[in-house]
Amino acid sequence: MKIAIAQIDPVIADISGNYQKISKYVHQAIQQGAELVIFPEMATIGYPPMDLLEHKKLIDDNLKSLEIIATLSNDCGIICGYVDYDHDNPPMLFNAAACMYKGQIQSKHYKTLLPTYDVFDELRYFSPASVQEPMKFKGVNIGLTICEDIWNDMSISEDSFMEYRRYNVDPVENLIKKGAEFIVNISASPYVKGKNSIKWNTIQHVAKKYHVPIVYVNQVGCNDSLIFDGNSFVIDTKANFIIMAKAFEEDCVIFDTADTYKPLVCEEDFLSDITNALVLGIKDYVYKSGFNKVVLGLSGGIDSALTACLAAQALGADNVIGITMPSVFSSKGSVEDSMALAKNLGITIHTIPINDCYDTYLDILKPYFNALPFDSTEENIQARIRGNILMGFSNKYGMLVLTTGNKSELSMGYCTLYGDMAGGLAVLSDIPKTMVYALSYYINRDKEIIPQSILEKAPSAELRENQKDQDTLPPYEILDQIIERYVELKMSAEDIINDGFDSSIVYNVLRTIDKNEYKRKQAPIGLKVTSKAFGVGRRIPIVQRFKH
Amino acid sequence: MKIAIAQIDPVIADISGNYQKISKYVHQAIQQGAELVIFPEMATIGYPPMDLLEHKKLIDDNLKSLEIIATLSNDCGIICGYVDYDHDNPPMLFNAAACMYKGQIQSKHYKTLLPTYDVFDELRYFSPASVQEPMKFKGVNIGLTICEDIWNDMSISEDSFMEYRRYNVDPVENLIKKGAEFIVNISASPYVKGKNSIKWNTIQHVAKKYHVPIVYVNQVGCNDSLIFDGNSFVIDTKANFIIMAKAFEEDCVIFDTADTYKPLVCEEDFLSDITNALVLGIKDYVYKSGFNKVVLGLSGGIDSALTACLAAQALGADNVIGITMPSVFSSKGSVEDSMALAKNLGITIHTIPINDCYDTYLDILKPYFNALPFDSTEENIQARIRGNILMGFSNKYGMLVLTTGNKSELSMGYCTLYGDMAGGLAVLSDIPKTMVYALSYYINRDKEIIPQSILEKAPSAELRENQKDQDTLPPYEILDQIIERYVELKMSAEDIINDGFDSSIVYNVLRTIDKNEYKRKQAPIGLKVTSKAFGVGRRIPIVQRFKH
Repeated sequence: MKIAIAQIDPVIADISGNYQKISKYVHQAIQQGAELVIFPEMATIGYPPMDLLEHKKLIDDNLKSLEIIATLSNDCGIICGYVDYDHDNPPMLFNAAACMYKGQIQSKHYKTLLPTYDVFDELRYFSPASVQEPMKFKGVNIGLTICEDIWNDMSISEDSFMEYRRYNVDPVENLIKKGAEFIVNISASPYVKGKNSIKWNTIQHVAKKYHVPIVYVNQVGCNDSLIFDGNSFVIDTKANFIIMAKAFEEDCVIFDTADTYKPLVCEEDFLSDITNALVLGIKDYVYKSGFNKVVLGLSGGIDSALTACLAAQALGADNVIGITMPSVFSSKGSVEDSMALAKNLGITIHTIPINDCYDTYLDILKPYFNALPFDSTEENIQARIRGNILMGFSNKYGMLVLTTGNKSELSMGYCTLYGDMAGGLAVLSDIPKTMVYALSYYINRDKEIIPQSILEKAPSAELRENQKDQDTLPPYEILDQIIERYVELKMSAEDIINDGFDSSIVYNVLRTIDKNEYKRKQAPIGLKVTSKAFGVGRRIPIVQRFKH
Repeated sequence: MKIAIAQIDPVIADISGNYQKISKYVHQAIQQGAELVIFPEMATIGYPPMDLLEHKKLIDDNLKSLEIIATLSNDCGIICGYVDYDHDNPPMLFNAAACMYKGQIQSKHYKTLLPTYDVFDELRYFSPASVQEPMKFKGVNIGLTICEDIWNDMSISEDSFMEYRRYNVDPVENLIKKGAEFIVNISASPYVKGKNSIKWNTIQHVAKKYHVPIVYVNQVGCNDSLIFDGNSFVIDTKANFIIMAKAFEEDCVIFDTADTYKPLVCEEDFLSDITNALVLGIKDYVYKSGFNKVVLGLSGGIDSALTACLAAQALGADNVIGITMPSVFSSKGSVEDSMALAKNLGITIHTIPINDCYDTYLDILKPYFNALPFDSTEENIQARIRGNILMGFSNKYGMLVLTTGNKSELSMGYCTLYGDMAGGLAVLSDIPKTMVYALSYYINRDKEIIPQSILEKAPSAELRENQKDQDTLPPYEILDQIIERYVELKMSAEDIINDGFDSSIVYNVLRTIDKNEYKRKQAPIGLKVTSKAFGVGRRIPIVQRFKH
C-alpha cells in the first residue's frame, strides 16, 4: 500500500485555512498514487486550541470541515485528527481521528491516554476512549492511535528527563490483541531537547515487541510557545527507521509498504535542532500573528546578537530592525559591536541615546527620591526607557518587538519588567546562558557573523558603572546546572548540594528563582525547547513560602 | 457533640506558618470544650499550591506537619486537609483529609471528584479515591467529603452560571448508603459572585434528601488571584442553616449538635461581598508578599478612585500613596479631583507632570517617526512614562504598584502594556465598568468619599485631545453585557445577537477581545470575583483565528 504522510503546520482555530492545507496535500498525495494519506492529531483545528474548545461553534465548524474532508477521499483513504463530542458526557469532548474512504467517514477512533502535565491539559477537555478497536483498510488491520497512546509501554524503564507516564491501560497492546498488524500514530508532539531520542527508542521498542510496522505523523510549526518539529517517520517490522520526513518544516512523504528501504540512522543534533526550532518559532509566531517585521534592542551583548541572527534567518535581514540605545553607563563597544553585527547581518540599525530621557526622569523624581543613593531604581528606569522606545517603533510601524533575555536571567529575575522584558515574543527565554554561547558559536561556524568581541566580553547589563553579571550571579556554568536541576528535574536543595554544588549558592539560587515568579508572570510568550520552560507548563504561585 | 469550625487563612506552602495557625485554633477549640475541630481542605499547605506539589520536599514536610498536628489531638479530635502520596501510582498524589484522635491519625480519606476546569487543575496532580468509607467518631458515623465531592447531586438541575459538573460517582450517596449519619465537607472554594446561592441550595438539597446535618468548613483568604470567602456553615437535619461563620475573615465557631439553633436566613449581598472580597484580596496579596505600602496612579477617573478607596480600607490610608501625573492632554479636573479624593481618604498624593519627559521622547524619536501623524504610539508613550514613574516609587521605596484597569478595558485592550498595566496586582481586572460604578456609589453610601465630579464625568483615558472612551468603545451598559455573554457564558456571536444586540457591535467586540489576548498574557495577577476571570482559569491561545 502506498501511504502518504502529510506533516502540516496548522494555525489554531483556523478551520478554513487548515482545510485548505489538508485539501492541498490530499490532492498532491492522490497525484502521487497514494492509497492512504495521514494527517496529524487534531489537524482540523491545530494543536493546542486550549479553552477555545469550550466554544461550541469551533467544534461544530471542525465537524463540518471533517465532512468536507471526507468528500476528498475516493480510492485514496484519509486519516485525519479532529475533535468530537462526547455526547454521553457533555460538555466533554473526544480527541479523535477519522478514517475516511470513498467519500464517507468509515470509522472514528478516540484517544485513550490524555496527557495532563506540563503544557498539556487534555483531561480539562476530553474523555478517554473506553475501547480500542483496529480498523480494516484495504485488507489491512490498522491500529490507529493518537500521540500519548503509544507512549505507555510499561516494559520500558523511565528516563528521568521526561515526565513520568502513569496510565493503567496500554492502547497499543489492546489493539495488537485485537489483530492490529500495523500501527498508525498521529501526533502533535512538541519539540524538547533530548525528547526525540526517547521517542525513537520508545516507538522502536513497540515495533520490536509486536513485530509491527509503525507510521508516526507529527504536526509541525509553532503555536504560541510550543514548537512542533515534524520529523514524522516510518519504522518497519524489524524496527528500522526507513522514512524520516523533514524537521521543522511542512512535508509530504510517500512510501510503499511493499518496497524495501535502506535503514536510516537517526540522531539528534542539539545545536542544529535548537537553532531550527527557534527560527521556525520566530517565523510562525510573527507571520501567524500578522506581522512581517520585528524590532529589537541591540545592547552589544551576546543575547541580543543571537536573537538578531535568528530573526534575520527567520524573516530576512530586511525585516529586522535593531536599535542601540546607549546610556552614560554603556561601554564604547556596546554601539560599535552592535554596528558590526548589523553590518554582518545586513539589518538596519538605529542609534538612539537615552541620556536626555534618563536625566529628565531623574529631574522630575528628584524631589521625591530625597537624595537616596543610586540603586536598582535608576537601573530599571534606563531599561524601561528602552522598552518605551522599542514599543514606540512597534506601535508606529507595526513591528513586533522581540525580547532577548535568556533563561538564566529570567530564572534569577536579572531583567527589568517593562524594560528589557517588554515585547511580544521572548526568543531565548528557554535558552540558558551557557547554551546561548554554544548557539552563538554555532552561528559563527562558517564565518564570523557575531563579532568576536561580543562573544568574548564579560556579560553585563551596563545599567551602572562597571557592572558585570558575575558581580551578583554565580558563574553561568554553575548557575545553569542548578537551574536545570531545580526547574527541569524538580530536585530538592539537598539533592542538588549532594551533586557537589555549594550549599549557600544553591539555597540562594532556589530562593531567587521562586521570588521572581512575579516577573515571569508578566513575561511575553517564550519559545519552549527544554523539558520545563517558564510559562504555561510551569504553574507556580507568586505568593508562597516553599522552604527548599 | 461540640464541634469547632476553624476557618483559616493559610499561606501557600508555608508549612510551619500554617501549622502555627492550626495549633492556635486547636488550643482555642479545646479551651472552649470542643470535642472535634475541623480545618479546611489542604490546610497544611494552603490551596492552591499548583506545581509546587511536584516538589517531594513539600509533600514530605506536609506529612511531617500532619504527624505533629496529630499529637495536638487528645479527647478533642481533629479533622484536617492535607496531601498524601498515591503510592500505587507515582508521582500522583491524593487530596486528603485525616481524622486524628488521642494523638494518632485514626483514618485517612481521599477526595473523589477532582475539579479540572476554570482555575482548577486537580487531575494534573491527584488520583481520585476509589472508595468512600464513613468514619466512626465518638459513636457517630461521619461521612467525610472534600469540596467538589458534595457538588455532584445529579437530581439538581444545572444552573448555566456555573461550570457544568460531570461525574459518574456521587460520593455523598455512597457514604449515606454505608451508614453516614452526618456529613462533613472541608473545602477551599473560591468566591464567585452568585456562587454562594448555588452552593447553599445544593448543599441544602443534600441535607433535605438524606435528612442529615452537614458541616461545611471553607478556607478563607486570598492566594494570588483566588479569594476564598470563608462563610463556613452548619445545616441541620431539616436543612436549616443554623451556624454561619464570618465572611472574608478568619473565624473559629463552636456549636453543639445537641443544641437547638434558630434558623438563619442566608442571602448574598453583591456590593458588600465584592467590596469585602477585593479588600481582603489587596490585604492578603500585599502582606503575604511582604509589602506594607502600595502606590497607584490617580488619573481623576473612577477606576483609580475606587482602587484607592479599596486600598485605603485594606491597608490604612497611611499606606497608600497616590500619584497624579498630568500631561498636556489632562483636564483640569484630573488633578483637582484626585486631590479631593486623596483628601477625603487621608492618603498622600504627589503631583508629577510628565510633559518634559513626553517632549524628550518625542524629540529623540522625531528623526525616526518622519512626521507621521499622532496616533496610539504617542498615547502609549505617555502611559508608559507613568508606568515608569510608578515603578520608580515601587523600586525606591518597596511599595507594590496597584493597577487600576477594569475588566471592560482589559477585554477590549483599552489599556497600555507597560503603561497603566504596569504593576503587581490588578485590583479591578475582573470588575466590569458598570460594576465599578455600582461599587463606587456603594463606597459613597454614607458620605461622599469619591468626589461627585469623578462619578459624573464621562470616562476618558486623556491621552489625546478631547478623548472619550465612548469614541471607540460601545456604551459600557452594552459592552459589559456582551463581554459577560462571551467570556463568562461562552455564547456564540449568533446567540448573543439573538439576545438583541447589534450584529456589527457583537462581532467587533468578540474579535477585539480575542485579538487582545497578548496584552492580557502580560497583565499582573488580578483578583477573581466572576465565574470567568482573565488569568489562570481562562487559557486562550494568543495566535489563533477562531471565527465567531
